[in-house]
Amino acid sequence: MRIDSVDFFYVAMPEVTLDADGSQDALVVRVTADGHVGWGECEASPLTSIAAFVTPRSHGACLPVADSVLGERIDSPADIDRIQALVRRNSMDLLQAAHTFSGIEIALWDLLGKVREEPVWRLLGFDRAHAKTPYASALFGATPQETLEKGRELTARGFRAVKYGWAGFGEGTAAADADQLHAAREGIGPDALLLVDAGQVWGADVEAAEARLAALQDVRATWIEEPFEADEYGAYAALGAAAARTGSVRVAGGEAAHSEALARTLLDYGHVGYLQVDTGRIGGIGPAHRAALYADRAGATFVNHTFTTHLALSASLQPFAGLADHRICEFPAEPRQLAIDLTRDHLPIVDGELTLPDAPGLGVEVDQEALVTYRRDVEILVDGEVLFAAPEPRAVTAAAR
Amino acid sequence: MRIDSVDFFYVAMPEVTLDADGSQDALVVRVTADGHVGWGECEASPLTSIAAFVTPRSHGACLPVADSVLGERIDSPADIDRIQALVRRNSMDLLQAAHTFSGIEIALWDLLGKVREEPVWRLLGFDRAHAKTPYASALFGATPQETLEKGRELTARGFRAVKYGWAGFGEGTAAADADQLHAAREGIGPDALLLVDAGQVWGADVEAAEARLAALQDVRATWIEEPFEADEYGAYAALGAAAARTGSVRVAGGEAAHSEALARTLLDYGHVGYLQVDTGRIGGIGPAHRAALYADRAGATFVNHTFTTHLALSASLQPFAGLADHRICEFPAEPRQLAIDLTRDHLPIVDGELTLPDAPGLGVEVDQEALVTYRRDVEILVDGEVLFAAPEPRAVTAAAR
Repeated sequence: MRIDSVDFFYVAMPEVTLDADGSQDALVVRVTADGHVGWGECEASPLTSIAAFVTPRSHGACLPVADSVLGERIDSPADIDRIQALVRRNSMDLLQAAHTFSGIEIALWDLLGKVREEPVWRLLGFDRAHAKTPYASALFGATPQETLEKGRELTARGFRAVKYGWAGFGEGTAAADADQLHAAREGIGPDALLLVDAGQVWGADVEAAEARLAALQDVRATWIEEPFEADEYGAYAALGAAAARTGSVRVAGGEAAHSEALARTLLDYGHVGYLQVDTGRIGGIGPAHRAALYADRAGATFVNHTFTTHLALSASLQPFAGLADHRICEFPAEPRQLAIDLTRDHLPIVDGELTLPDAPGLGVEVDQEALVTYRRDVEILVDGEVLFAAPEPRAVTAAAR
Repeated sequence: MRIDSVDFFYVAMPEVTLDADGSQDALVVRVTADGHVGWGECEASPLTSIAAFVTPRSHGACLPVADSVLGERIDSPADIDRIQALVRRNSMDLLQAAHTFSGIEIALWDLLGKVREEPVWRLLGFDRAHAKTPYASALFGATPQETLEKGRELTARGFRAVKYGWAGFGEGTAAADADQLHAAREGIGPDALLLVDAGQVWGADVEAAEARLAALQDVRATWIEEPFEADEYGAYAALGAAAARTGSVRVAGGEAAHSEALARTLLDYGHVGYLQVDTGRIGGIGPAHRAALYADRAGATFVNHTFTTHLALSASLQPFAGLADHRICEFPAEPRQLAIDLTRDHLPIVDGELTLPDAPGLGVEVDQEALVTYRRDVEILVDGEVLFAAPEPRAVTAAAR
């Protein structure tokens, strides 16, 4: 097969707020090859990622992503890796390229899985998809009481693990954070796993992060996530060492890794206990899969990072579906309506566990009506030539039926 | 002062080829604050970088770069750092933001220097700008004979150091590369410094790079640059150790670092001997300056990476102008006409040495006629609203007179 087309669909809620909630918009990618179709999703600024696909070339190592994708053969997983290598070489100086290509790469796996009538996890070499324990990913409440009530509600919905983050955590005193942490533990009860996301709030300030370790240990938090800016590997290593001295809390990070090598760096140099990879940023399913195997060999635990739709959720679970010991998975528990409406299928939680379906490709169908409902109309012109125009919704819907 | 406007000027040669030559286009940035003007340049895909400035927000940690810049106060270098921190936080999930902001940051330093009537290097705390030894940055010839002739021509022009790179180097046999290296040494003569740029050609293959060490040592190369993909820090460390066993060749890298932390990682974990920073990518002059001081403390040598205009050249030399021991600097020796025409001033090489002027700001004036001549007309619309339209050249020219 040969890649005939790559279409980008930028969708968004009517109002996009300042909440740290990544489900307010999405960039959905459709790839076609010889009449076959695959779908993927970038976890990225939609307009910027579209621009990286269509931009005029700057020089031989700064080509638009399109130049390495359109017209390429896609017959096997090796072709996907080959195309990725082309993008990395030809778009070396185009920073956004990794985010743009991630959604395309995911769509290529979906397409290949549908053609072969196999789930992606089987194409990756796994015998089976093991059940995972999804954690509900939520923002801290505005007050400890709200945090407590969120915890009650989420565990009542069947979650055995809850992650809180953002919403001012880490910005005030350590005492205020401790109040939030105790409220969180009280809300979810003694048995559920408690995870905490600092959202890079301490920059590279190891001391500020260390000041929270005692409270994290008190409430038996499993991890403290993204204490620092994503590339402050030295700070990660220092906090990890301090946490190991204190008790059982571990450092987690990796969602911003936009290459396999950066994920490896966070393991080998930053010594995180939990490697969290966003398949929609790292370059797609292939690099995420190799990062998962690498984390496993390094004695760390691989976890997906997913804050958007069930298309992205399926894509982010495939890379470690067959690794039985890597049990925790992120589950977007408070998505905006867009993220719900965007797929016809939703991965169900049964008895507090989530298992990927044994269905072709990603096993999640995009609801193309949602692409119409939430559509943002983008047009990019250079020297009067239209380099990008949002695909017509009607045509999309018709083509897919 | 308050930042009133940020304008982007995308200029390009009429034909942009596949050569690994970054001088074929440019993204020039003009910032105004209370009637004062500063100019900067991003070393980045122009259209993609513009999109990152104007894109609609995705969520609270994925805002357009504009939201952290427009309307901000700019009265001191501390304000520039503060704005950078805002961008890093508010655009955490917007990968291209670092490239976009780099040009803005440079323009802010230029503006501040003009207001204070001081060169940027003095605002950075340096007493004087030391003379540097510029190396001519050139591509290998198609044949060893061409490489030899280029070397003769460049040393005849007064260069005491020449860097060759790309154009197939590393893609064939080690013997073919050795032929090129010997031709290079013969061309530049026994006394000039010889530098070699592998352009990431070996991916993460340490063995392939090691196979070239003997020839590099034979021709007394000073460094082997970017042997691997930019984030393959482990491979950098391994080759560096092998080179140290072999002789005096050192590993160089860093041009792709899009944050200060990544530059530090290349030093502390990748153990490069030469840290090459592109001020137009790392986030601007402030992060480049801190990286230079860090390299100095780490016992490594800081070098600018510059392949475009003399505006970019001045911006990239300011961060280490006062560090006398860091003598080598990159000088784009084969620029396209655009890169020559874009500035009225050009930094002269006198007796094989280059010294930054003691002139306000960057000391290099943009030729606004060139912004007209080479202009690429960009228009970006979302939902029918024009988010970006290329500034009118006539208005630009008029405003600046």
